[in-house]
Amino acid sequence: MLNVGIVGATGYTGYELIHLIARHPQARLVWATSESSAGQRICDLYPTPDETQLSHFDDAPLARADVIFFCLPHAASMEAVARARAAGVRAIDLSADFRLPDPQIYEQWYNTPHTQTHLLQTAVYGLCEIHRSQIAGAELVANPGCYPTSVNLGLWPLARAGVLGPRVIADSKSGVSGAGRKLRLGSHFVEINENMVPYSIGYAHRHIAEMELILGRHMPDLQITFSPHLIPVNRGILSTLYIELDPTLSQQAVRDLYRSAYADEAFIHLLPAGQTATLRHTVNSNRVAIGLTPLPRPGQWIITASEDNLLKGASGQAVQNMNLMFGLDETAGLV
Amino acid sequence: MLNVGIVGATGYTGYELIHLIARHPQARLVWATSESSAGQRICDLYPTPDETQLSHFDDAPLARADVIFFCLPHAASMEAVARARAAGVRAIDLSADFRLPDPQIYEQWYNTPHTQTHLLQTAVYGLCEIHRSQIAGAELVANPGCYPTSVNLGLWPLARAGVLGPRVIADSKSGVSGAGRKLRLGSHFVEINENMVPYSIGYAHRHIAEMELILGRHMPDLQITFSPHLIPVNRGILSTLYIELDPTLSQQAVRDLYRSAYADEAFIHLLPAGQTATLRHTVNSNRVAIGLTPLPRPGQWIITASEDNLLKGASGQAVQNMNLMFGLDETAGLV
Amino acid sequence: MLNVGIVGATGYTGYELIHLIARHPQARLVWATSESSAGQRICDLYPTPDETQLSHFDDAPLARADVIFFCLPHAASMEAVARARAAGVRAIDLSADFRLPDPQIYEQWYNTPHTQTHLLQTAVYGLCEIHRSQIAGAELVANPGCYPTSVNLGLWPLARAGVLGPRVIADSKSGVSGAGRKLRLGSHFVEINENMVPYSIGYAHRHIAEMELILGRHMPDLQITFSPHLIPVNRGILSTLYIELDPTLSQQAVRDLYRSAYADEAFIHLLPAGQTATLRHTVNSNRVAIGLTPLPRPGQWIITASEDNLLKGASGQAVQNMNLMFGLDETAGLV
Amino acid sequence: MLNVGIVGATGYTGYELIHLIARHPQARLVWATSESSAGQRICDLYPTPDETQLSHFDDAPLARADVIFFCLPHAASMEAVARARAAGVRAIDLSADFRLPDPQIYEQWYNTPHTQTHLLQTAVYGLCEIHRSQIAGAELVANPGCYPTSVNLGLWPLARAGVLGPRVIADSKSGVSGAGRKLRLGSHFVEINENMVPYSIGYAHRHIAEMELILGRHMPDLQITFSPHLIPVNRGILSTLYIELDPTLSQQAVRDLYRSAYADEAFIHLLPAGQTATLRHTVNSNRVAIGLTPLPRPGQWIITASEDNLLKGASGQAVQNMNLMFGLDETAGLV
Repeated sequence: MLNVGIVGATGYTGYELIHLIARHPQARLVWATSESSAGQRICDLYPTPDETQLSHFDDAPLARADVIFFCLPHAASMEAVARARAAGVRAIDLSADFRLPDPQIYEQWYNTPHTQTHLLQTAVYGLCEIHRSQIAGAELVANPGCYPTSVNLGLWPLARAGVLGPRVIADSKSGVSGAGRKLRLGSHFVEINENMVPYSIGYAHRHIAEMELILGRHMPDLQITFSPHLIPVNRGILSTLYIELDPTLSQQAVRDLYRSAYADEAFIHLLPAGQTATLRHTVNSNRVAIGLTPLPRPGQWIITASEDNLLKGASGQAVQNMNLMFGLDETAGLV
Repeated sequence: MLNVGIVGATGYTGYELIHLIARHPQARLVWATSESSAGQRICDLYPTPDETQLSHFDDAPLARADVIFFCLPHAASMEAVARARAAGVRAIDLSADFRLPDPQIYEQWYNTPHTQTHLLQTAVYGLCEIHRSQIAGAELVANPGCYPTSVNLGLWPLARAGVLGPRVIADSKSGVSGAGRKLRLGSHFVEINENMVPYSIGYAHRHIAEMELILGRHMPDLQITFSPHLIPVNRGILSTLYIELDPTLSQQAVRDLYRSAYADEAFIHLLPAGQTATLRHTVNSNRVAIGLTPLPRPGQWIITASEDNLLKGASGQAVQNMNLMFGLDETAGLV
Repeated sequence: MLNVGIVGATGYTGYELIHLIARHPQARLVWATSESSAGQRICDLYPTPDETQLSHFDDAPLARADVIFFCLPHAASMEAVARARAAGVRAIDLSADFRLPDPQIYEQWYNTPHTQTHLLQTAVYGLCEIHRSQIAGAELVANPGCYPTSVNLGLWPLARAGVLGPRVIADSKSGVSGAGRKLRLGSHFVEINENMVPYSIGYAHRHIAEMELILGRHMPDLQITFSPHLIPVNRGILSTLYIELDPTLSQQAVRDLYRSAYADEAFIHLLPAGQTATLRHTVNSNRVAIGLTPLPRPGQWIITASEDNLLKGASGQAVQNMNLMFGLDETAGLV
Repeated sequence: MLNVGIVGATGYTGYELIHLIARHPQARLVWATSESSAGQRICDLYPTPDETQLSHFDDAPLARADVIFFCLPHAASMEAVARARAAGVRAIDLSADFRLPDPQIYEQWYNTPHTQTHLLQTAVYGLCEIHRSQIAGAELVANPGCYPTSVNLGLWPLARAGVLGPRVIADSKSGVSGAGRKLRLGSHFVEINENMVPYSIGYAHRHIAEMELILGRHMPDLQITFSPHLIPVNRGILSTLYIELDPTLSQQAVRDLYRSAYADEAFIHLLPAGQTATLRHTVNSNRVAIGLTPLPRPGQWIITASEDNLLKGASGQAVQNMNLMFGLDETAGLV
């Protein structure tokens, strides 16, 4: 049994992890922390019978854990992770702090300097389907952002094959849990129910950096436009991706690129021709569903990709990373 | 044209009033206040083209208004109302501060002393269908609470006829706008969407005082149990009322009590036999819908009553009160 | 490994069972039927990668199954169950057909004669927490209705102790999946979203028979009023139960009745004093959450009970019954 | 007072028209028809006190109306409209039957021949802000489709100025009322609640023809990609429009094109720089809200446009057309 610690357990991703670890056949929670709610139990904060006790991070016995999940806001996370690493404990960070290897790009998008740059070199970007082998040996995994997971997995087979045109438009829609449990007017029920709100559209959202990181590796001239929208559902992301491909590629050839890229992937649901991804394909699962829609004009395609933002987009993929890091069945606790 | 002032214009009831007055054929807004947002416009706070400027209450030209609506929290409202009355301006208070004529009962339910007891005697409880004649001449109208409006109008024909048994159970369900625009975890989209939450059930909610005020006038032995529940909709209240009547009353006799009580009422929708009130009967209208359901056991009935909590349950009834106070068509601006 | 068959696999309860059995560590699906969709796969009907093939019931190899779940409408179910029993296969029926031991009461509520009365004597009403010992040896289990499960488990500790007054009012609220996947105007998104609809209120809903069956066993004078309401959520039932108890009972004594009745129950979440059950306490779990609220007037209480109507209210409890019937860990596949 | 007839009054657009005409100061309903519900009243079909009687179209006194609204499905509408025109009554058709002047293009998109081609020449496409002068004298107005209204009004100032690049991507999101009241699995509450569904994406939705009609007039090389998505709200369309403009245009110059195109338009809400359109900007109003967002790369813009699909996207614009046709205040009954 793996011993697991969770730092920042009372936000939506932390709570989801508590739930996932409780059902995991080969892992158990040994401690969980919350600065705002130390001394309380999870059942004091959420409608659940779960009586997990919360402590301050300073009081957590780091070394009792084989692996620690960090569910802290960016900037706050990097130092906590460094302490775990200094104690020799493997870490999975759900914040953005170790996703971008170049600290200057990090600072540019997050407006704060990176104070733990020595850890950046060892951090592995935990997009499991793409970086599986690096994750296996990693001491520090940077768990990917929710939106980039849908966009990157949705386009990676095309990008690595060198057939994807530079201009990519990602029109993404996310449930409200993606905005966190913190109180803000935009998450007030009356403000978002029966509403739909575009925000940070175009080239303003920080998650673009992760799309450029993964897709840009294969496409130096990538020009991504990314438009997130908040929709009145609890969970789920749907990305509608407008792309151009080499117009000589047949529809079957495009499909074959996905088939070979994702053969045997337990968490990729490649939809049959004619179908598009919906939230319901993936909510409450760790899957990404991907639909391939060719347009009448040669070379123009729409890729639809959906996921549960709290599972494959956050805590589910974090557990998948844990499974890979410790040589467990990759799907353990996730089906 | 009536000149209207609105104090506390940025909460849901204040914003609703701005909208209602803008469409009212015989009234116009002359000023609106907000302590938290003075200097801003409504369109800076809500997704609307409405450019109404907000000022501090201290800067509002009280006397330019023929009537002032107060949309402040209880306790805060009473002093502001007193200033308007001192300036000779008629007032409609949407808070609870002038609803209960007995300051001791007020203090008992609201845990704060009443500092303007001299105004309590002149205040009229503005339940239009019941107090129409007193409202016409009133200088100060206390606009009823949202829940009590549904319960009181739903049962008044029975109470005044002396046929209603003392034990009344009101199981009420309200949309989230009833909890206001203030940020709290219970109004966070993810917390209440796909959820339903009973709160202050039994004999704990302050609105009971208004039910005892109106129904208790006819029923000294009234024993009310009141259970509000929050449901994931923006607007609307549905009260399911479990009552006992004189078992010798025929179904037609019961229906006739409602017919005669509410003959010619524009805003009462008495449903045909066999129908129950739903939210959709009244949302976006100033109506109350009332359904009468007899049970097989003689004397047992269920009354269902619905309303839009922001209209008949608050701002709509406030405009109805204004219409009555100034001798306008009672439905002006409300259909 | 238990071999499982599912009859009527394409409605919400059947689909939920497919999902539950797929994750069950000691059971596997061997066949599934659907008259309307025979020849298709589940993934042709639902947004899922599940490729389970559907056949006609007539083509299903009954005897290959150790246990068959029947997810058919009432009246249609009884004959299909009889065929399984004739083939010697144990059966769990999710319809109402075998819940009521008296065929006259069945006919009275369901307006159709019972054609398999010989099976009624052997059928066990599968309310696991109450009938655990009978279920263990049962060949035919009648899985309880969704509403009665919340009401019966919410009141049983009081009824069996003989302290519950005869007059019980159950104001229940259910998500829309309870109305099934069949197309009807009342389940159209635009009709029920932002709405709330009471239906069959008072003494008209068939589920009353199951409340009288279980609670009435201890209370010959039980007078139940039951009012279901449809609310705009996918899953979940909340029952607000208005009851009278022996007024000399202390609050602690009442709580102790629940504690002793449900000691060690994995799926009963008895809430601490001061808390009420919400949908979120139980949705996506097989639990029932129960809150105990005393009113100021001695002897008057409100019990709140919630459950997921598709899990503890249907398919989850069906799996719990299977676990009991075959001597498995009662929680297998349910946590 | 204008006398109004409504054909097909029981769908969502017909019901909305009944509501709008009831509040219109210069129009009154004289008859309404429904083939499926003739003999019933609106209050038998909807939760409303409205007792409007429904008749068969054959029994409707066409000539008593000054204007008739047709709320029928396409193909069914054209003949009914022809009868009204033969009777000399002016007509506003909410179907697609008279929107496309070229019957071959109609047949190509709608898979049915146009049987009333003689009326196509006189029909005016009723996009009020663009065709105001033609509408004034029209005998037959083809009310625009819901999606095209948002796209066409969102881009028209750019198209007519000749600055819009040929490649336009419209990612649109619509509430479920846009799919009509007819029962279909995709409108079942449980199927679309907590879900989001792309459909007919790319170049498959019939409304593309209307975008090509209006924008294509100025842009012979227009290449539009249109992707509608169903979202779990009752009302509202949001179109996120990805476009390229002449890169030498300043941001102010682009804004000025909208200002001059829509100066004095009562129903266009041009948002300030930095804001994007949300559903809430326009739901329950007849407005279109338009936000202009420049991207960092010169010439790339995102236009967001929202509307209420049942008002400006259907019945509201139909009333606006009536107002224009009969020389009334264009906003009468719409504010």
